[in-house]
Amino acid sequence: MALLQVVLVVSYLTVMWIPRTWAAQSVKVPGEQAAEQSHRQDSADLLVFIALLTLTILTIWLFKHRRFRFIHETGLAMIYGLLMGVILRYGLTQTPPAPRVLYNCSLVNGSESLLVNVSGRYFEYKLQGEVENLHDPGRSEALQKVTFDPEVFFNILLPPIIFYAGYSLKRRHFFRNLGSILAYAFLGTTVSCFVTGSVFYGFVCLARAVGALNENFHFTDCLFFGAIISATDPVTVLAIFNELRVDVDLYALLFGESVLNDAIAITLASSIAAYSPSMQNTFDTAAVFNCIGRFLVILSGSFAMGAVTGIMTAFTKLHDFPLLETALFFLLSWSTFLLAEACALTGIVAVLFCGITQAHYTYNNLSAESRDRTKQLFELLNFLAENFIFSYMGLALFTFQKHIFNPIIIIGALLAILVGRASNIYPLSFFLNLGRRNKISFNFQHMMMFAGLRGAVAFALAIRDTETEAQQAIFSTTLLLVFFTVWVMGGGTTPMLSWLHIRDGVSRTKNESAWLFRMWYIFDHNYLKPLLTHAGPPLTSTLPHCCEPLARCLTSLQAYEVRN
Amino acid sequence: MALLQVVLVVSYLTVMWIPRTWAAQSVKVPGEQAAEQSHRQDSADLLVFIALLTLTILTIWLFKHRRFRFIHETGLAMIYGLLMGVILRYGLTQTPPAPRVLYNCSLVNGSESLLVNVSGRYFEYKLQGEVENLHDPGRSEALQKVTFDPEVFFNILLPPIIFYAGYSLKRRHFFRNLGSILAYAFLGTTVSCFVTGSVFYGFVCLARAVGALNENFHFTDCLFFGAIISATDPVTVLAIFNELRVDVDLYALLFGESVLNDAIAITLASSIAAYSPSMQNTFDTAAVFNCIGRFLVILSGSFAMGAVTGIMTAFTKLHDFPLLETALFFLLSWSTFLLAEACALTGIVAVLFCGITQAHYTYNNLSAESRDRTKQLFELLNFLAENFIFSYMGLALFTFQKHIFNPIIIIGALLAILVGRASNIYPLSFFLNLGRRNKISFNFQHMMMFAGLRGAVAFALAIRDTETEAQQAIFSTTLLLVFFTVWVMGGGTTPMLSWLHIRDGVSRTKNESAWLFRMWYIFDHNYLKPLLTHAGPPLTSTLPHCCEPLARCLTSLQAYEVRN
Repeated sequence: MALLQVVLVVSYLTVMWIPRTWAAQSVKVPGEQAAEQSHRQDSADLLVFIALLTLTILTIWLFKHRRFRFIHETGLAMIYGLLMGVILRYGLTQTPPAPRVLYNCSLVNGSESLLVNVSGRYFEYKLQGEVENLHDPGRSEALQKVTFDPEVFFNILLPPIIFYAGYSLKRRHFFRNLGSILAYAFLGTTVSCFVTGSVFYGFVCLARAVGALNENFHFTDCLFFGAIISATDPVTVLAIFNELRVDVDLYALLFGESVLNDAIAITLASSIAAYSPSMQNTFDTAAVFNCIGRFLVILSGSFAMGAVTGIMTAFTKLHDFPLLETALFFLLSWSTFLLAEACALTGIVAVLFCGITQAHYTYNNLSAESRDRTKQLFELLNFLAENFIFSYMGLALFTFQKHIFNPIIIIGALLAILVGRASNIYPLSFFLNLGRRNKISFNFQHMMMFAGLRGAVAFALAIRDTETEAQQAIFSTTLLLVFFTVWVMGGGTTPMLSWLHIRDGVSRTKNESAWLFRMWYIFDHNYLKPLLTHAGPPLTSTLPHCCEPLARCLTSLQAYEVRN
Repeated sequence: MALLQVVLVVSYLTVMWIPRTWAAQSVKVPGEQAAEQSHRQDSADLLVFIALLTLTILTIWLFKHRRFRFIHETGLAMIYGLLMGVILRYGLTQTPPAPRVLYNCSLVNGSESLLVNVSGRYFEYKLQGEVENLHDPGRSEALQKVTFDPEVFFNILLPPIIFYAGYSLKRRHFFRNLGSILAYAFLGTTVSCFVTGSVFYGFVCLARAVGALNENFHFTDCLFFGAIISATDPVTVLAIFNELRVDVDLYALLFGESVLNDAIAITLASSIAAYSPSMQNTFDTAAVFNCIGRFLVILSGSFAMGAVTGIMTAFTKLHDFPLLETALFFLLSWSTFLLAEACALTGIVAVLFCGITQAHYTYNNLSAESRDRTKQLFELLNFLAENFIFSYMGLALFTFQKHIFNPIIIIGALLAILVGRASNIYPLSFFLNLGRRNKISFNFQHMMMFAGLRGAVAFALAIRDTETEAQQAIFSTTLLLVFFTVWVMGGGTTPMLSWLHIRDGVSRTKNESAWLFRMWYIFDHNYLKPLLTHAGPPLTSTLPHCCEPLARCLTSLQAYEVRN
């Protein structure tokens, strides 16, 4: 049976290729038929990715079934993507593009669209999507087609991943280590961004001095690189932690940090990209403060929006109808993203905080079936999006048209992220240990240093804008760093864990004494939880006597029942 | 608590409007900022639909909670869509559009894209999306924005609905009535298409004679209308059937017919649209046979592709890992759609047969958790897509730019669909009853006649192409017919059921004696089920002795276990 299964799947995957080859070879036709042709081509291209994901899933299953553990599914997806990229790049015959005729017209100032009369039919065009490589006739159309709009990654594939991360934060251990996690995420990521950026700039200067790089690579580009590469994604590491039941505090620290530092890195990157001094590429105090203000506004605005929506959903309780409940949950979470984007904030950051709030409050109000449904739905979306991004990364290494691989830059970037990560973890851990009773041991610090993998967020941020040469070099470098960290550091997690003797699997004593945790816990337990969920004591017993009418009005019947 | 909930939801929905108003009023800017502006506007527009769906879900919940049953959720979604359409149409201030300058250039023959030099930057445009109403300066941009690309309905929203319909066919009763269902779906729908088209053409001629219509409304347009309006969608009726536990055979007949006739209607519509006689708008025997051939090829090709993929998935058994299993199931189902589209067949039809096959075979091979997961996932997608389409229909009545409402055409169409439906149900039932032991009573026939609601498929087919005036009139008419049937006939289901005395709720005696059913059952039970699932007797006991080696190789261990 198993052999039959393999034969069938392979033959089906082969069949998926037929329309692609067919579409690529058929003659181009104008007008309506061209639209249909393009639709068929799109379908054929999507099939390539579905074939990739199918292969990945089947291999993961085989690995899990046989208990192989030396490579994670994301690493696997990347390998298959790489192979597919090689096939697309070197295996397809390059068809010469159709002859191109250039029309000239001057742009009316302020107009954002162009109206053109083509042989008596009128077309209107938005002035977006400028053509690069205008005079490069050898560019293969087939390669161009499998390149997605970069915004797809940021607006469609990343939100479910980030939301799921927020939604699956292990709440208890997360809040117990809240102070340290916030320190690593906020302070640590900022430090890492600037240290990485500065070290990287040193190598850029070196490359420029030896003539391996032209002049258009500025300090802001290096800082931007520092920001995007500071978003860690230890998905491989955490998967292994989960299987081996590694220390829960270390898990909470790593997971919490990696989830929150995405928010900081995304906000930092968009603030740095918006840095526009009065003189090009000079230091401008006003612009710097503008950047810092922007950073704070976006971060706090997105946080507030996510938290408010999360709390909103806590109030909408549609018991007995799990389908409606799940649909509402899904729509409200999505609306957080859209609302933040529409208000020029960062949707991904809002979605992250929305997920955290919902895991903490709304989840308690859902019926048992809705809990399962939402968990499973977002788990599936996360799985598909993550594997899609990683297999696309593999593909992009060979099919992306504008790679700039510069050895000095790449080695410099690797050193820079190591220095940046070290300057995040070690000094901060030292200061945190001064205040923590439950110290973060050196072995834990080494493990956190080692677990600084880069993944989907760094990639999505890097591919978002690849117009200048500096951005292209940053994109290529980021891609290589993701490959390196996922394969080398991800693959080395199990040996590293045994080498550092972190495999106890036993939860520590409940040493919940950090002052930040205690303050938060009391406030949350006495006021927020009773208000937003049915858990905890009724508000009537926690609020002072003067507020009793208000407390009575806000306490639900179920809360009393839980009490009794 | 309930009051608080309502206040919060309403305030949140209000907040969703702010970015929309804000975005509409802010100053237009060129270049990169315009792209960001447009992204924000898109987010704000999507928020309108999310707000609509949220409102619908909350109202449905309220209705279900209070056991109201006089309106179905799809009818509700349409009402909210209508209200939103009125607000968008009459409530928004009309901003005068930016001045438009027209550039002229002659099209190089055979070229499918246009390259333009705008002030030194190069843009490439596909020659699609022609501008209509070029000289209509009063057209509101806000209205234009909430109009989606029609292909979205056909390629994104319809597939999950159709797949879910196939996946949730009640298998036992479906196969028991297979012969009748196939007759209604194949013969009935074709008859309905031609009768409706002919009657409708009579009214078109009448309208032309009294001068209420110009000349460009041909018989092929009428046939096209007959095809799209023959796709019935008794979702409202079936929801009520489900709640009242109406006779299972009637349920199976109605549901089976409505699921399968979508396939016929879609294929008919695309074949008629492709009718291109050598002389414009004349009868051309060769072109007619071309059409018929196309119909048969598309239908059988899509059927084969769907069935083959469905059987494929039956072989891929990834037990113990429900996430992987669900993901694979989802990807393979989607790939059916894409594969059919890439091969110039009809993806929706393929997905339908894929769903039916999967419900019959693959479903038995899934682990218990994966069964729940896939059911719930597709249930959610179906729910969201269906409500989105119905609320969009409400919206489109007021925001669509090119409505042509012609009273003679509309009344004619209403009569035509009644005559068409009657000529499908009554003669066929008469002939079927000659062969059936378990007769279809007159009351059942009246109920089937009455349950001929029109919905998402008719709408998606009608909106797909609205270039000519005839197509615009057909679109407007279809929209009104959907409204009429959903509200009047959908709302009248419960009274109709009691009037016709169809409320027994008792399943009939198992009278499984139709010869088609028996033949199918034996073949399926003895050969297909043992091969594709673990159910049924092992192949070793059903195949003749000469095939024993083959049978042994194809029978899984579990099948023997089930046997023992």
